[in-house]
Amino acid sequence: MKIDILTLFPEMFSVFNHSILAKAREKGIIDINCFNIRDFTENKHKKVDDYPYGGGAGMVMSPQPIVDCIKHVKENNGGRVIFLGPKGTTFTQSKANDLSKEENIIFLCGHYEGIDERVYNYIDEEISLGDFILTGGEMAAIPVIDSICRLVPGVLSSSSSYEDESFYNGLLEYPQYTRPEVFNGERVPEVLISGHHENIRKWRKTMSLLLTKKNRLDLFKKFSLSKEDIKLLKNIDKL
Amino acid sequence: MKIDILTLFPEMFSVFNHSILAKAREKGIIDINCFNIRDFTENKHKKVDDYPYGGGAGMVMSPQPIVDCIKHVKENNGGRVIFLGPKGTTFTQSKANDLSKEENIIFLCGHYEGIDERVYNYIDEEISLGDFILTGGEMAAIPVIDSICRLVPGVLSSSSSYEDESFYNGLLEYPQYTRPEVFNGERVPEVLISGHHENIRKWRKTMSLLLTKKNRLDLFKKFSLSKEDIKLLKNIDKL
Repeated sequence: MKIDILTLFPEMFSVFNHSILAKAREKGIIDINCFNIRDFTENKHKKVDDYPYGGGAGMVMSPQPIVDCIKHVKENNGGRVIFLGPKGTTFTQSKANDLSKEENIIFLCGHYEGIDERVYNYIDEEISLGDFILTGGEMAAIPVIDSICRLVPGVLSSSSSYEDESFYNGLLEYPQYTRPEVFNGERVPEVLISGHHENIRKWRKTMSLLLTKKNRLDLFKKFSLSKEDIKLLKNIDKL
Repeated sequence: MKIDILTLFPEMFSVFNHSILAKAREKGIIDINCFNIRDFTENKHKKVDDYPYGGGAGMVMSPQPIVDCIKHVKENNGGRVIFLGPKGTTFTQSKANDLSKEENIIFLCGHYEGIDERVYNYIDEEISLGDFILTGGEMAAIPVIDSICRLVPGVLSSSSSYEDESFYNGLLEYPQYTRPEVFNGERVPEVLISGHHENIRKWRKTMSLLLTKKNRLDLFKKFSLSKEDIKLLKNIDKL
């Protein structure tokens, strides 16, 4: 997968020089390139923003450098142009899945008080990270790119390692334990060291259901309970 | 505000050496420190994770290094311990506002398949960035910290520069325009260059209402329309 990032702060994306994404880049599975929007300004002072028409605090990003940067990148690579902004559709795991199938994505990061409205003519889609305000689109691009790339085949060491996780099946993940068996006086639940796979599976499913109901009633209500799930919830006392 | 980050990848937070947060750190308004959880392991191989009890893909972060790291940081600075994980409450602007009033926050970033459940005894609160899976808590900590810090007095150059923005008042922001007046044949709306402040205010409010209704019906339904808002929406054709 090829990812092009259009930003005023390319250095911020050195975050992808570490951990899992660094390995995926080394293996050539993911190719991430940053383009500095400032390099595309026709303005001799390399100015990329200006006062908003109609007044108001802050500066607005000028259309010319952004549009020329988009045109340059599209000419070379093509790809869907996604703007990371507060007015877009909220990012979810389902969107991450869809985008992980693209060959080439262009992410546009705004900064300051936003971009000139006329840039929207060159954008395919706007995605919002959530209902909160950030200093720039870079802060949203970082988790969005991470979330998409980890779904690209070969990025995670085992294809099964994301299937158990929260949101993958609509429930929060069950509690995880590792050694030591007793930590600060607290033991690992007996069932997990029993070696009884079927009981472990049932315990984990029950915990996922209970935790989702407690922490995220909105997700729990959307989840279709199987016959077994209903039985597991009824039998909680027996566990 | 003092922010302590507990992570296996302190280098990732060099993202805060740029732009607005870099300036706030230089001015001494925000103090960000990273602690490497790996430095706290008692294991001679500096191992920080182990296989999950009960089986399953991936590795789980061991409790000892995390808990010792939390204890060390709390001893020096105190502060609320926030774990960035998928089972937490979804982060919103209202949470950012609350946390921006804290003097000291400790952010714990998990990695791999999660943390040992017994670490939760040392955590005050779990926050989730949204309903998607990330390779690590670092990817969530970056936007969460950015969103909180920009609300700390003195971080943004003008206190008014965040009051107009999306989600601050429950609506998406109106379209912004800057020079040139005509870009690729498209003009800035007449009202914005009219100099008529009251008309500009009304146009912007109307655009905010329309855009929110179109892109985010969930937010629009939660918003209490004033008498003027209802009138503005009725008079759209007149604009």
